[in-house]
Amino acid sequence: MARVSMREEIVEAALEQFHTRGYNAAGVKDITVAAGVPKGSFYNHFDSKESLAVVALERYGANVRLGDLADRSVAPLPRLRAHFELLRDETVRRGYTRGCMFGNFGAEVADHSGPVRGAVHDAFARWSAAIAATLAEARQAGALPSGLDPEQVAAFLLSAWEGTLLRARADRSSEAFDTFFTVAFGTLLA
Amino acid sequence: MARVSMREEIVEAALEQFHTRGYNAAGVKDITVAAGVPKGSFYNHFDSKESLAVVALERYGANVRLGDLADRSVAPLPRLRAHFELLRDETVRRGYTRGCMFGNFGAEVADHSGPVRGAVHDAFARWSAAIAATLAEARQAGALPSGLDPEQVAAFLLSAWEGTLLRARADRSSEAFDTFFTVAFGTLLA
Repeated sequence: MARVSMREEIVEAALEQFHTRGYNAAGVKDITVAAGVPKGSFYNHFDSKESLAVVALERYGANVRLGDLADRSVAPLPRLRAHFELLRDETVRRGYTRGCMFGNFGAEVADHSGPVRGAVHDAFARWSAAIAATLAEARQAGALPSGLDPEQVAAFLLSAWEGTLLRARADRSSEAFDTFFTVAFGTLLA
Repeated sequence: MARVSMREEIVEAALEQFHTRGYNAAGVKDITVAAGVPKGSFYNHFDSKESLAVVALERYGANVRLGDLADRSVAPLPRLRAHFELLRDETVRRGYTRGCMFGNFGAEVADHSGPVRGAVHDAFARWSAAIAATLAEARQAGALPSGLDPEQVAAFLLSAWEGTLLRARADRSSEAFDTFFTVAFGTLLA
């Protein structure tokens, strides 16, 4: 079997190391060891840990599965709910650890790195827009309570989701997830 | 003027260093330099950076001003709104940096330290309970939309607030704050 490129191995290892340990706790050495590549090879592919972090954040975007939000074979609100349920299930499976890498890097790195802040900003903007498009579909289908603005509600729900992940991790319990689904889908969008 | 105790100077410096740099980026040396105390004196007062982090998180609690939420001279919902507005103003004044230390340590440290996770858990639980008590007052005064459970809505609002801070930092803009106030107070609680 052909070996995937060294760059690709570094990116995959970085994604895992950054997500489990955080940005500052994951050193270049940890990443190259996890990737099984010589430490010296790192700088053939990346200028700095910071540039690798931006690539890893972009790669992490696939985990959020924004494509599922565009699947018109499911009604918009159940589709949005399933989107968050799938992300919840992943966190529960990991014993309430890791959280969302966008939120983690937003908390730990955004103040200190323009490129990382930019990548987190873009990721949130894309995610929020995908949620807003789903809510706009719901509105068109008459399934959104009147007076709700899809873009504002999308941004609010995404913030609530990010905070819910922080709380679920601190509690190591699904209570915060239950609250999110009850209030978001049982009250705000009901 | 009497010099405050060395322990106190270390705690104050740690609070500032942890909040601005994060847990892993703020070393014991950074903290003792900022406190103006010899590095060796650190371990006379604390077992580890981790134990200091727990003390710093408890100290940070004062910044959240939960006492204001119990001030019955203001009607409950305007009081709750003013609580978040004051925290927003602080973040705006700091150029959208720092965020909430509970959320930051929840994102960066909770997975890796039981004591820090416990301190973040307790802090969120206390804050959520104070918001719930304010919402329960609103309900008693007939100012809460029917069907809203104060405890659940409090936990949801706190999550939304924590996520809003992450978003505002990533955007360096007050848009996420505007969204929070519009949806929380203009829709959910209206």
